[in-house]
Amino acid sequence: MPTMRTRKIRILHALLRAGDKRRLRRALERLDDVEIAQQLDNLETDDQLAALRLVPASRRAEIIGAMRYESAAGLVAALAPEEAASVVDDLDADDAVDILGYLPEGALSAILKQLDREDADEIEDLLAYDEETAGGRMSPQFFSCFPEATVRDALEVIQASEETPENAFYVYVCDEDDRLVGVCSLRMLVISRPEQPLRDIMLTEVTAVAADTDQEDVAEMVSRYDLVAVPVVDDQRRLIGVIDVDDVVDVIREEATEDILKMAGAGEDLADARSFTGALRVRWRWLMAAAVGGTLAALSLSGFDGILATAPELAFFMPVVAAMGGNIGIQSSTIVVRGLAVGYIEADRVRRLVVREVSLGVVMGLLFGTLIGLVSMGVAEPSTDPLRLGVVVALGTAGSMTIAAAVGTSTPLILDRLDIDPAVATGPFVTTSVDIAGLLFYFWLASRLLGLA
Amino acid sequence: MPTMRTRKIRILHALLRAGDKRRLRRALERLDDVEIAQQLDNLETDDQLAALRLVPASRRAEIIGAMRYESAAGLVAALAPEEAASVVDDLDADDAVDILGYLPEGALSAILKQLDREDADEIEDLLAYDEETAGGRMSPQFFSCFPEATVRDALEVIQASEETPENAFYVYVCDEDDRLVGVCSLRMLVISRPEQPLRDIMLTEVTAVAADTDQEDVAEMVSRYDLVAVPVVDDQRRLIGVIDVDDVVDVIREEATEDILKMAGAGEDLADARSFTGALRVRWRWLMAAAVGGTLAALSLSGFDGILATAPELAFFMPVVAAMGGNIGIQSSTIVVRGLAVGYIEADRVRRLVVREVSLGVVMGLLFGTLIGLVSMGVAEPSTDPLRLGVVVALGTAGSMTIAAAVGTSTPLILDRLDIDPAVATGPFVTTSVDIAGLLFYFWLASRLLGLA
Repeated sequence: MPTMRTRKIRILHALLRAGDKRRLRRALERLDDVEIAQQLDNLETDDQLAALRLVPASRRAEIIGAMRYESAAGLVAALAPEEAASVVDDLDADDAVDILGYLPEGALSAILKQLDREDADEIEDLLAYDEETAGGRMSPQFFSCFPEATVRDALEVIQASEETPENAFYVYVCDEDDRLVGVCSLRMLVISRPEQPLRDIMLTEVTAVAADTDQEDVAEMVSRYDLVAVPVVDDQRRLIGVIDVDDVVDVIREEATEDILKMAGAGEDLADARSFTGALRVRWRWLMAAAVGGTLAALSLSGFDGILATAPELAFFMPVVAAMGGNIGIQSSTIVVRGLAVGYIEADRVRRLVVREVSLGVVMGLLFGTLIGLVSMGVAEPSTDPLRLGVVVALGTAGSMTIAAAVGTSTPLILDRLDIDPAVATGPFVTTSVDIAGLLFYFWLASRLLGLA
Repeated sequence: MPTMRTRKIRILHALLRAGDKRRLRRALERLDDVEIAQQLDNLETDDQLAALRLVPASRRAEIIGAMRYESAAGLVAALAPEEAASVVDDLDADDAVDILGYLPEGALSAILKQLDREDADEIEDLLAYDEETAGGRMSPQFFSCFPEATVRDALEVIQASEETPENAFYVYVCDEDDRLVGVCSLRMLVISRPEQPLRDIMLTEVTAVAADTDQEDVAEMVSRYDLVAVPVVDDQRRLIGVIDVDDVVDVIREEATEDILKMAGAGEDLADARSFTGALRVRWRWLMAAAVGGTLAALSLSGFDGILATAPELAFFMPVVAAMGGNIGIQSSTIVVRGLAVGYIEADRVRRLVVREVSLGVVMGLLFGTLIGLVSMGVAEPSTDPLRLGVVVALGTAGSMTIAAAVGTSTPLILDRLDIDPAVATGPFVTTSVDIAGLLFYFWLASRLLGLA
């Protein structure tokens, strides 16, 4: 599958370069909306426009809705305002908002001016929510009925509606103050008698979220409760929107990407990495932390110049002592950070987790320390006692790994307790502190054991 | 919300310890099935059993179905076979299979013996599929009709069914050879006239997957096409099962966890980390790679003992030279590994990506190298020329970061081209090769610039 996709893209790319409109149009006809969207995502705006103009107008909104929001925004901004407005009008409201959120103020208001007053208001209302919350993800289009409505009434509401997204499979039941009081799935409607009032068949225990709920918490809830849609309510429990599961799927992928990138200190979004300056901006901080930490390490080690003059081969094992600590520290912290993110680590498990990680550090440290220590004995200078050098390297490695396991496990746990996102702050702190503490221990050992020799 | 959850768990945990059955039963009544499941996940098997016995039998299957599969399997294995069979009978078939997959052969066959012949066969068929494929994820329960069936017929099929999962919102249309020819959503059925044959209203372009499709590809498809369910077909395009979106949500979370853990060399599954020996087993490999790499680094550096005797302060800056490289290397490789996983990096972008990352390495390297080099001048020994030391540290850092950016970017791209999972092999290779190459470059520079002094 991936091979085929790649081949298709290359054809499109090549056809655009060659300017062969006839073959380009034929190639576009063979692709579905999602495939075209995926390819537009990887083209420059000029090429996107050229390709889009060859696609029938009726397909354009679907294609743009399936593109990455940021990339779609670039394309929408390049269209004439009337053209852009007609695309926006055909989009699902939640997709429209996600795309328009990337537009500069001027381009946005030019497009909104071309829309119906009502549609423009709806979009402006939705744009007011933070894009990473339930409000920013919800669609204002859903089916709703009063509790007194019958199954037949509800089915008629569904039949009459054109605007509601294809994946809407629930009818929400709201009282006269718009307050959410129940929900009926399409399936319940289908198996009930037409004259039954919804009040009699609806589920009254509805899982709903507030508009300012973090999208990550929404995703967690959907995953735990196997939901297909989540209603969003205001502080009066009035229904204001619905998040469909296809948006939740996107949220889960985005949040995973965010966590992965954060842990590597590489931003929060793959789009950050697209431009040189963008990458520079999101990545310099972690590197600065490493530079400061490393410089501090250098300064704190500089007191050990005496022992280093006595046994210069100590220097050659510094990288492996530090790296063994760094590696086990990253293992421990990754397990804890991810465990916290997916709710795998619960309060009553924390102590057991810390004990296990630290004992792993000790066991692995002694194991690998012995191995590396044995090798170090082979390269001891004539003036150094090989056995003592071996012991220093072995215990140095073991100490570095034990410290790293302890720091790697406890740092994210403490950050989480302090309500600081463990993904973002764990990495630099763990690697830097392990470098410093591990190597200080190593040189302290050396000055004790080799300094006396 | 997380705080509340934690408090509830502590109560249950405490009540179990105290053995207060009356208060425990009351506490259980206040929790929903998913909340109980979540708490059982964090208890030992004996405690799980004690709590489960206090819950009405009618809730037990729902609770067990909402637990983590592995944890649920431990509990099911601890039940008497008849009791276990009755729970399995009430579970959705796909959940049952996912749980039973963790049971030892003996326990499994004892339970299957207690089931109806037909149910047991169904489960055995499903157990034959690899659990990380579409076949291992699908449910064999779905709605299907012939193309000649009317809308009314289809609605009757839905009304007659009890076993099909709650989230089934599609009726699949199959010909007399069971071959999938179309699909109708419940919504299409609701808005169509009862006497219409399905043939006239069904969508014929159905996205279906083969049973051996990797679950990650299924998730990718669901995400791109905004699907709520994916039919699974055999090589004759006969419909054999359906994957519902709630399972896809789980797949996406699991795959993200797997990628995160793999990149840190910490296994593939958080459950690996649960026991000491399990953690040891999955984590020693990466550490061994780091140990071998670090030892090789030590051996290759040992030729530079002369220059180190001349300028021992070189040693103190080894950790920061290596760490700066390691950090930018991890940034680059993480962006590429995740970009490949979510389809963000397309063929025609690769060259641009490599150029950008390497130039980032050069720019950041010179920037941070200058900073660190300036500091190093302050700790130069009297016998060392501070300017030359500063230049060695600065250029060493810049070189290490440039090498790291190049290796970090190209390694996952090459592994991907060779069809090796970039997540699993990138980390150790990048950090180790950067340690070796970066430090060799640093000492080579030093012997050139300081050795001549």
